[in-house]
Amino acid sequence: MTEHKPVPGSNAPGKSVILELISYDRETYNKHDSLNVEELCNNLQPNQVNWVNLDGLHDLDIIEKLQAKFSLHPLLIDDIMADQRPKAEEFEGYLFFTLKMLYKIDSRDIDYEQINFVLGKDFLLSFQEKEGDLFDGFRDRIRLDLGKVRKKQGDYLLYRLIDIIVDNYYNVLDRIGDIIEEIEEKVYENPTNKTFNRIQSLKKELIYLRKALYPLREALGKLVKGESEFIKEENLMYYADVYDHVSHLIDSSDTYKDLTSSLMDIHINAMNTRMNEVMKVLTVISTIFMPLTFIVGVYGMNFDHMPELRWPSGYYIVWGIMLLIVISMLVFFRRKKWF
Amino acid sequence: MTEHKPVPGSNAPGKSVILELISYDRETYNKHDSLNVEELCNNLQPNQVNWVNLDGLHDLDIIEKLQAKFSLHPLLIDDIMADQRPKAEEFEGYLFFTLKMLYKIDSRDIDYEQINFVLGKDFLLSFQEKEGDLFDGFRDRIRLDLGKVRKKQGDYLLYRLIDIIVDNYYNVLDRIGDIIEEIEEKVYENPTNKTFNRIQSLKKELIYLRKALYPLREALGKLVKGESEFIKEENLMYYADVYDHVSHLIDSSDTYKDLTSSLMDIHINAMNTRMNEVMKVLTVISTIFMPLTFIVGVYGMNFDHMPELRWPSGYYIVWGIMLLIVISMLVFFRRKKWF
Amino acid sequence: MTEHKPVPGSNAPGKSVILELISYDRETYNKHDSLNVEELCNNLQPNQVNWVNLDGLHDLDIIEKLQAKFSLHPLLIDDIMADQRPKAEEFEGYLFFTLKMLYKIDSRDIDYEQINFVLGKDFLLSFQEKEGDLFDGFRDRIRLDLGKVRKKQGDYLLYRLIDIIVDNYYNVLDRIGDIIEEIEEKVYENPTNKTFNRIQSLKKELIYLRKALYPLREALGKLVKGESEFIKEENLMYYADVYDHVSHLIDSSDTYKDLTSSLMDIHINAMNTRMNEVMKVLTVISTIFMPLTFIVGVYGMNFDHMPELRWPSGYYIVWGIMLLIVISMLVFFRRKKWF
Amino acid sequence: MTEHKPVPGSNAPGKSVILELISYDRETYNKHDSLNVEELCNNLQPNQVNWVNLDGLHDLDIIEKLQAKFSLHPLLIDDIMADQRPKAEEFEGYLFFTLKMLYKIDSRDIDYEQINFVLGKDFLLSFQEKEGDLFDGFRDRIRLDLGKVRKKQGDYLLYRLIDIIVDNYYNVLDRIGDIIEEIEEKVYENPTNKTFNRIQSLKKELIYLRKALYPLREALGKLVKGESEFIKEENLMYYADVYDHVSHLIDSSDTYKDLTSSLMDIHINAMNTRMNEVMKVLTVISTIFMPLTFIVGVYGMNFDHMPELRWPSGYYIVWGIMLLIVISMLVFFRRKKWF
Amino acid sequence: MTEHKPVPGSNAPGKSVILELISYDRETYNKHDSLNVEELCNNLQPNQVNWVNLDGLHDLDIIEKLQAKFSLHPLLIDDIMADQRPKAEEFEGYLFFTLKMLYKIDSRDIDYEQINFVLGKDFLLSFQEKEGDLFDGFRDRIRLDLGKVRKKQGDYLLYRLIDIIVDNYYNVLDRIGDIIEEIEEKVYENPTNKTFNRIQSLKKELIYLRKALYPLREALGKLVKGESEFIKEENLMYYADVYDHVSHLIDSSDTYKDLTSSLMDIHINAMNTRMNEVMKVLTVISTIFMPLTFIVGVYGMNFDHMPELRWPSGYYIVWGIMLLIVISMLVFFRRKKWF
Repeated sequence: MTEHKPVPGSNAPGKSVILELISYDRETYNKHDSLNVEELCNNLQPNQVNWVNLDGLHDLDIIEKLQAKFSLHPLLIDDIMADQRPKAEEFEGYLFFTLKMLYKIDSRDIDYEQINFVLGKDFLLSFQEKEGDLFDGFRDRIRLDLGKVRKKQGDYLLYRLIDIIVDNYYNVLDRIGDIIEEIEEKVYENPTNKTFNRIQSLKKELIYLRKALYPLREALGKLVKGESEFIKEENLMYYADVYDHVSHLIDSSDTYKDLTSSLMDIHINAMNTRMNEVMKVLTVISTIFMPLTFIVGVYGMNFDHMPELRWPSGYYIVWGIMLLIVISMLVFFRRKKWF
Repeated sequence: MTEHKPVPGSNAPGKSVILELISYDRETYNKHDSLNVEELCNNLQPNQVNWVNLDGLHDLDIIEKLQAKFSLHPLLIDDIMADQRPKAEEFEGYLFFTLKMLYKIDSRDIDYEQINFVLGKDFLLSFQEKEGDLFDGFRDRIRLDLGKVRKKQGDYLLYRLIDIIVDNYYNVLDRIGDIIEEIEEKVYENPTNKTFNRIQSLKKELIYLRKALYPLREALGKLVKGESEFIKEENLMYYADVYDHVSHLIDSSDTYKDLTSSLMDIHINAMNTRMNEVMKVLTVISTIFMPLTFIVGVYGMNFDHMPELRWPSGYYIVWGIMLLIVISMLVFFRRKKWF
Repeated sequence: MTEHKPVPGSNAPGKSVILELISYDRETYNKHDSLNVEELCNNLQPNQVNWVNLDGLHDLDIIEKLQAKFSLHPLLIDDIMADQRPKAEEFEGYLFFTLKMLYKIDSRDIDYEQINFVLGKDFLLSFQEKEGDLFDGFRDRIRLDLGKVRKKQGDYLLYRLIDIIVDNYYNVLDRIGDIIEEIEEKVYENPTNKTFNRIQSLKKELIYLRKALYPLREALGKLVKGESEFIKEENLMYYADVYDHVSHLIDSSDTYKDLTSSLMDIHINAMNTRMNEVMKVLTVISTIFMPLTFIVGVYGMNFDHMPELRWPSGYYIVWGIMLLIVISMLVFFRRKKWF
Repeated sequence: MTEHKPVPGSNAPGKSVILELISYDRETYNKHDSLNVEELCNNLQPNQVNWVNLDGLHDLDIIEKLQAKFSLHPLLIDDIMADQRPKAEEFEGYLFFTLKMLYKIDSRDIDYEQINFVLGKDFLLSFQEKEGDLFDGFRDRIRLDLGKVRKKQGDYLLYRLIDIIVDNYYNVLDRIGDIIEEIEEKVYENPTNKTFNRIQSLKKELIYLRKALYPLREALGKLVKGESEFIKEENLMYYADVYDHVSHLIDSSDTYKDLTSSLMDIHINAMNTRMNEVMKVLTVISTIFMPLTFIVGVYGMNFDHMPELRWPSGYYIVWGIMLLIVISMLVFFRRKKWF
Repeated sequence: MTEHKPVPGSNAPGKSVILELISYDRETYNKHDSLNVEELCNNLQPNQVNWVNLDGLHDLDIIEKLQAKFSLHPLLIDDIMADQRPKAEEFEGYLFFTLKMLYKIDSRDIDYEQINFVLGKDFLLSFQEKEGDLFDGFRDRIRLDLGKVRKKQGDYLLYRLIDIIVDNYYNVLDRIGDIIEEIEEKVYENPTNKTFNRIQSLKKELIYLRKALYPLREALGKLVKGESEFIKEENLMYYADVYDHVSHLIDSSDTYKDLTSSLMDIHINAMNTRMNEVMKVLTVISTIFMPLTFIVGVYGMNFDHMPELRWPSGYYIVWGIMLLIVISMLVFFRRKKWF
């Protein structure tokens, strides 16, 4: 939950860094793994799309060399190194786009990772701290020349990468939807603390999702309006499509937020109903047995002069009276609809 | 509650698909059922309104052929196949409009289905997954040349179809209004869990309704502003009218939302009032009988020296004291307005 | 609570319909009652203000004739016949304005009725379902040539009619304000279900009021901006004045909404305080008498060997101990500030 | 709480009316008290600032004469006579500005009074119902030629008067801030109904404050944008300064609103905590003494054959058992952390 | 919590005032401590950046001299002396910027101090009441010519100072985030009043943070739009960066606000669950022992004719019955899932 701090593990030299270059155009495709920065710079192909991916932001040396090579602004480097809200920002010579990538969505707690893109004329840089991303399938598609990506420029590549990240949000929301349905069935009949805690953790996930989605829509909106020279007009509609998806995601997360607060109401009501029942049981029992106990107490007194004690049928009369009391109590409670 | 997934049942070859063409102008009217795509293409009438309706989105072959014939954009096809928020989007050569259609509104749970329209110069395509729609009566009106539809172009046809769908929302809201009134009468006198659950399911219906209505208004607002070249200016006022209806629906759903939360308050208050009553009964009974039981306990003790036990009128004096206690308790509670 | 339905009682031929024409200019004034449509059309005065008032929308024949005479758009007729949100809409040849009129405001439940205006060059049509309106006093003012109305055109007449309707809203809000003050005094001392239900019905009234007021402000805002050619610029300030009144009404209804939710809080707190008191009484009584009852129970046991029972002062010692217990309990509760 | 009604006491001839004229420029200063309207009109100084102040709106005769003299619009007169939301409105020949003045702020209940300004070329009219205002100190500053006011025109005078009124709001908010701090200290330790009622009355004060402040900001915003010809551009920054003050007041009232709702939460939690404690005491006492009372009851039975009763140490064994029960209960409650 | 008042301690001559001047350009750097105003004015370097810092606003004499020297507007002086919401305002000849500086963030209660900047062509004035600020490290960087500051003008200096202040907000938010996580772990298992009070104090801190942040974003937004001539266009992106940081801070504070209200829900639910448990214990104990106590009471009665008392096995039968009752009660509660 800490924010804006430098990513932990910075300057940890033991941790490996992955630097990867994919260059392609309609005809050619080249992939270079485990390069150092100098090799990478030599391998950049002037008239092709050069996708440079860096996993691991703690090697300041690499960052600095990339900064020099692509003349990245110091503010941009600051933004890459620290936690940022999703945004699109135009610098001289390139467009900067940062957003949150979700992964490990199967486990209870979602992990967010910031991914940063720098889109220039013939290059796209992507920066992230942790190894591994959502793009492996897509890399194959580039290699095999599936879809339009090889026929298009870097702005289309950026669209595809954002689109893949956004699609991944749908999985999280679908899972939240499933859990809501599951809880809903349980909460009516058996409101336990466990269901309550699940509702709370759903709410928390939705809070974080919205924090990632709202500024993302804003950032995409900026691009869709055609404010950036790095997105060709013919590709604006692709960004508009992602924009629509994010809007849809926001709608859904709003809906789910309303549904979780509805679940909360159901839980609270179920708790109160239970409390009510408990109190009724207590009251019925007390109301029936307190008078009876009093009566038998009366005839347990040791006064010398208690004429009823001497009556032959006194004992049975007392039983009769007590039976009458019980019956009238039950009728009273029945009328009050207590059971 | 799952979203953005491909519609279940895709590629299920067993499921039938309905492809239907209605072509008309002022003079002529033709309807072709159960066509295959090739026949359909041959039957399109250049200077007439051609309404192509496809029920069943799982036959990818048909979709692809239609895509080719009408040169539909791949993004549009994606939007048709997946769950979308209602929107209007202009492509080159046609206008895309998608919204949610309600049906089976008599049952407890409302069913939403996405319906997609593509409006071109001389054609209107409508796509939906499930068979059956709300337009049968309207098809007859076209055939019989009732109303203005035969005198107008495809943009008017689209307006009419949207209008029919929106009118159907009114039925749902009316039913919700009726249920609210019904619950309101009950909840004051007898707040059961059943009424509570009905309130909750109303709330849920309203949440989904709003999710369908807000983006629909937005989409219509785009058309009303005259941004689309496919809606003739003379027909803008019809779209403005549907826009007003949707605004009215939103107002009503807001009102109903406020009313259901008011019902919740009433329910909760009724529950609390009951709880209060139960507690009062318990307290009154305890407060009266505990002192009495103590007193009779005192004279049930077996001490050798308890002078009161020997008094001839001791028993009667005790009864007198206990009567006094009861009366003073009742006066006390009366003053506290406990009953 | 049903909406958008055709007004109930349509086509009920037994119900009477009132059609009325008032024509005036600076010099002349004419009023015609109980006309049929043909007579009315003959009596229209070309260069005067012609105010045509129709009470009763179920006679479709009259509506159709008026539609033909004034060339009203079918959409407009639909809007008149069905429940609409307040709006202003410009058609070719006239301006359409619809809003809600309040009446029977003295009774508990407010009645809303939709009133529709059509303002043309030299005519103003007003349509409503039920007989009787708020304009009788104003009709006299026209006849007697009081105020400016005879010196002005139809747009001023429309302003005056809207102003009269809006002024009537103030009565409702004043009454709500009075009731809030009344409840406030009661709720602190005696939170009964009756006060709670009154708060709820206030809330409901405010919900409906806001539903009528917000779109009305929107509609007036459209006119104030000078978008309509049927409102002369010199009269815009009158509409601005009504606009301000409606804004003021909205402010007040917001204030009252906040006050009613404050009343709810007070009510709930008063309920809880009572519950707390009840529980304290129960607990104090139980805590005092349970130990005492236990002690006297001890000496009610029948063991052969219970030395205390034989002590001459045993009985008095027990009383002393019990007194000690009661006193220490009372001190304990006093310290806990339970009473 | 009634609104838009004519000010009570209208036409009450007994009540005195104050009409006052202050005329000044750089060199001269004149003040005329208790004038009648005719005298006032004769004393107006053409090229000076003429500040006409009227306390008491019930003398319709004076109002009508002023209306004639300054050619005030009838709508403006209506606005002066009735309760209005703060607003700025430009008429031909003058600017109308109305806002709420606070006074008697030391007492528990704040009094709001509407004050109306009409700013013309060489005059400023101020209207209010009740005698006495906040401007006495400022009148002295004009007379003594302190500050800039004598060097400036009527628009600067209007700014100063509004500024004085707005400054007075700060006093109220400061007092509210002090009360919040005071309550906060108490509510944690001792949540009484008295503190609750104070919170509620704070909330009510804030509701009314906001109702006065929001439209005031709107009205000032209109002026700051330079829409009025009666405010010279060189003085716009003064209005911008008041605008900022009102924004600051709104921020503070929002903050205080949040703080009062936080106080409510604390109060409710404190109440619940107390309730919990009460219930725990009751339960601990009941759980300890009920089994004990049962046991002593067992040996109070009068069966002929109860072997324990004959055991010499039976009595002591029972005491031992009971001691064991008490100890184990205490251990149980300790583990549950009930005390 | 008092606002808009003159800073306490004004005119307290005993309190020391710090007046400091730092002048620099690319080549030279001069720092003058403990100057009086006259000396300061003589030391201003025409073509360098002159940063004048004043700690202590109570010496009106200094303020007046500075006002005269830099021709500061009286309104600006008022704004410096009183509590203001963060804002940017352009005066003739300089830009005024005021915001809140946080310090003593380690202690429980955050301290806010207003800091005011006046940016002119070749000077930057900074005013604050209390001694000590966050800029000491940065002063060293200027002296040592680290970073870009010596190569840039006053607008960059202002950016850096604001940036340092904003960065400090991150520390507060991080600490709040840590506390939220800490509380969350505790509140599930053990909802004490202490955790509740910590949640409340978090909420309060967030309320104040937001009050400082929202207008700050507004003020920065004004600058970012390039409305001020005192910010060079080449430096706008730096201000845009601070703007983004403040937006991020607002997002985070919103998220934390949602999380604290979620914590509140958890706390309240935990409290209710406990209450429920307590009530269940009470009810179970009462329901088991009340009937038993009644039964033993029956056989404690002293009637002459009670046949059971004479049965040899009567005592054992009673024990049997009581055992049966206990067992059936336990089964009943088990089925109700009470334990």
